[in-house]
Amino acid sequence: MEKKLAKFKQAVAEIFDIYAAAMMLEWDQQVNMPPGGAERRGNQIATLQGLVHSKTTSKKFGKRLEKLSKYAEELDPDSDDARLIQNVQKFYDTHAKVTPEYTAKFYKTVALAYGAWEEARAESNFAKFQPYLEEIVDLRRQYAEFFAPYEHVYDPLLDVYEPDMKTAEVQAIFNQLRPQQVELLKAIADSPQVDSSFLHLEYDEQKQWDFGVEVITKYGYDWKRGRQDKSAHPFTIGFSVNDVRITTRVDKNYIPTALFGTLHECGHALYGMGHNPAYERTPLADGASMAVHESQSRTYENLVGRSMPFWEHFYPRLQEFFPSQLGNVDLGTFYKGINYVEPSLIRVEADEATYNLHIMLRLELEIALMEGSLAVNDLPAAWNSRMEEYFDLTPPNDAQGVLQDVHWSSGYFGYFPTYALGNLISAQLWEKLSQEMPDIDDQMRRGEFANLTEWMRSNIHVHGKKYKPQELVQRVTGSKIDPAPYMRYLTTKYSEIYGL
Amino acid sequence: MEKKLAKFKQAVAEIFDIYAAAMMLEWDQQVNMPPGGAERRGNQIATLQGLVHSKTTSKKFGKRLEKLSKYAEELDPDSDDARLIQNVQKFYDTHAKVTPEYTAKFYKTVALAYGAWEEARAESNFAKFQPYLEEIVDLRRQYAEFFAPYEHVYDPLLDVYEPDMKTAEVQAIFNQLRPQQVELLKAIADSPQVDSSFLHLEYDEQKQWDFGVEVITKYGYDWKRGRQDKSAHPFTIGFSVNDVRITTRVDKNYIPTALFGTLHECGHALYGMGHNPAYERTPLADGASMAVHESQSRTYENLVGRSMPFWEHFYPRLQEFFPSQLGNVDLGTFYKGINYVEPSLIRVEADEATYNLHIMLRLELEIALMEGSLAVNDLPAAWNSRMEEYFDLTPPNDAQGVLQDVHWSSGYFGYFPTYALGNLISAQLWEKLSQEMPDIDDQMRRGEFANLTEWMRSNIHVHGKKYKPQELVQRVTGSKIDPAPYMRYLTTKYSEIYGL
Repeated sequence: MEKKLAKFKQAVAEIFDIYAAAMMLEWDQQVNMPPGGAERRGNQIATLQGLVHSKTTSKKFGKRLEKLSKYAEELDPDSDDARLIQNVQKFYDTHAKVTPEYTAKFYKTVALAYGAWEEARAESNFAKFQPYLEEIVDLRRQYAEFFAPYEHVYDPLLDVYEPDMKTAEVQAIFNQLRPQQVELLKAIADSPQVDSSFLHLEYDEQKQWDFGVEVITKYGYDWKRGRQDKSAHPFTIGFSVNDVRITTRVDKNYIPTALFGTLHECGHALYGMGHNPAYERTPLADGASMAVHESQSRTYENLVGRSMPFWEHFYPRLQEFFPSQLGNVDLGTFYKGINYVEPSLIRVEADEATYNLHIMLRLELEIALMEGSLAVNDLPAAWNSRMEEYFDLTPPNDAQGVLQDVHWSSGYFGYFPTYALGNLISAQLWEKLSQEMPDIDDQMRRGEFANLTEWMRSNIHVHGKKYKPQELVQRVTGSKIDPAPYMRYLTTKYSEIYGL
Repeated sequence: MEKKLAKFKQAVAEIFDIYAAAMMLEWDQQVNMPPGGAERRGNQIATLQGLVHSKTTSKKFGKRLEKLSKYAEELDPDSDDARLIQNVQKFYDTHAKVTPEYTAKFYKTVALAYGAWEEARAESNFAKFQPYLEEIVDLRRQYAEFFAPYEHVYDPLLDVYEPDMKTAEVQAIFNQLRPQQVELLKAIADSPQVDSSFLHLEYDEQKQWDFGVEVITKYGYDWKRGRQDKSAHPFTIGFSVNDVRITTRVDKNYIPTALFGTLHECGHALYGMGHNPAYERTPLADGASMAVHESQSRTYENLVGRSMPFWEHFYPRLQEFFPSQLGNVDLGTFYKGINYVEPSLIRVEADEATYNLHIMLRLELEIALMEGSLAVNDLPAAWNSRMEEYFDLTPPNDAQGVLQDVHWSSGYFGYFPTYALGNLISAQLWEKLSQEMPDIDDQMRRGEFANLTEWMRSNIHVHGKKYKPQELVQRVTGSKIDPAPYMRYLTTKYSEIYGL
């Protein structure tokens, strides 16, 4: 059986090499590729994806997997081998259930839809995007049917990003969270606003870049195993546990974009760099889920990067970089400014107190679209009425409303909730870490992040995709995903900042 | 049959997509990859190469090819389809004849040999490299045996780079060329030397880069279909006819490195960008051979880039970039300086008059190693004695002698002669072009290169790998590769510069 397992691992390694090569092509596409390369690049990526599919669903591989899945039942269910086989089984099931015809059609559709969405957003013309979105909604409903029977039609979509998570679970969490978030926001709105005008001055782009590099180097980002480039949309991508790259963008008139964007992507990257090296070339060398991934990016961006202890250390340095902009802004004012809360139209610009509400709005609409209770045609109106309900804001146009996010044009239904779940997990982890490391604030004040990153590494990063997200959160914190720590975190933080 | 042909082309397209993806991984490795990524990258490239091999040699593909090869006999032998099938047949034969075990061993060996060569060169210690080179020589002799019977053991190696070219042909060309090159060099050596000291001043690196970009933009390098990066060793690589990238390196104390290196790589890139777009995703979207490729890089580097008409246009601009270094150097002095001839130890620094002799020396040694008449152990002595014979120079150590080039450590036996053949072809093409475009010098004086590049495109570039190198040269110039035009070019040029 050991020989069979070794052969199986070799076959898995080859599939995940092809997968990594496809990711390399995508990274290049977003970071370096000249426009002329686009058409052929599409072919190349499709060919590699086709190979992953055909290798995974080949009879030979299927038979091998069947034998090993039986063998896995004899193994310690928490052993790496058992979990690897389980993970590959799930990968196989997905590839075997979803027809290649569907996949080809889906990729073709989203490729066209992306262009249509870009145009529609630029012109704020939903009608231009509507037929594409209708097709995508239809395709994602078809996708769910491959996994029938299900508890809820949205479950198979959610499962792509949050293995084994159910729609009902997310709804229960959000139902608990929503009134508390709304209440907090109301309290903040009733308080005097803080000053954040200095964030909008002109900041030299290279200096912004250099400061970010200094911070993430202290966070533990390993430049021998990664690099940072510019791209239109920041992202993190790993081709190996020893090659995890980040991108950022710089806005010379708004310093938070590059700064917190860099810290955010670094959080993702530390996760990718921290997987057990033994998982290399297997599906285990990945995050447990998008929510757990987001918990890492949010920790380094927000719980650390927007905290007072962090800035007690870094603010004097930032003032050295930008004396004319920040020389007369004291630490307290700066801290309040970067934690400024205001209901706004745009998710990606949202603060910690409002962010989750943007997500809930999207989740409700996604579920309604998938259930068929909302037609794409009625989506803009549904969007706007919820914006009024949650934020008391009316988008002046669809570009700043229903057309703002790229996700739907790419077919990413099921993705949005992971952002909010990631916020919740980050606070749960932070409470646990603070119990085990009561001097964490003092460490941050001294600019020391090694113990923090080591705690994350040993509790979260090293396990890769071995555990399901809820299982992992339970193992580390003693309970499943729970909104209470996040609300405690927000309430404490904003009570101080806004004097609630 | 048309259906069969379409299916065949689809299968070929997928193979060449994988091939292009592997090249992307190699480009990234040399341009961007952090050191940590190396190990896994090796796996990824090996996996993709293995896929190219298994797809090419699959029974299904073999049968398809067999039928089509018969069908091709009915086609116009000069039709694209006939040539495509022929090309794929050759690709298939090579993959089918060379065992996967050999290929795996070869790549493993050269991966280790490269490191050993780097160390050996750094320490000027041939003994450190010797066992690896012995294994590589042995492996390349084994490679030749896969293609037995052959006229000469070196033929199958040469064929990798120059399809259908025979060792005897190259030897005949070189035997004709050698005495004339030696005689010219002697005449130059007997003349007063020109001044080239100004090339060694300090030149701002960014300005060097910017000037190169200006020139190659005028050459016709299409930035929408390419990009330039820095790398330790300059190279050109194409992932599509619409994505052909170049790299360069900059030496702040020697301006020719970046300048002529950029022009050289641009010549390669124009070739790659000029292939018939209909050849995309087939083996025809490639150069006819390494020599024909080199003819393009040498044309834009030397016949154009080191010519007086070129500098009549560009020198005032270069002086604007570097007023303190070149403000007092007149055009005539500059022109002579960049065409300075001196026998030297290092091939990559060699001028146009001595370059081919470096190649002949290497070819003779390669043939002797492959024939078995020279042992690796005796190689340094053989190298040094030839250096004395050809250049009247004795390398002070092996780092500046037998260890200087990377090629042997990578197993590139058969590659060197293509450099010299490329020089010869460049002069042949130039004579033909000058006949058809008698005002080419005036065009260059006006900074106009569109007609030149269009001539190369329609005569050479567009055909890709459709024709064999000798066939292509014959089609365009009316004769096979011939050393006479190159000797005429050198004699005219240096007679003027050195007043022979």
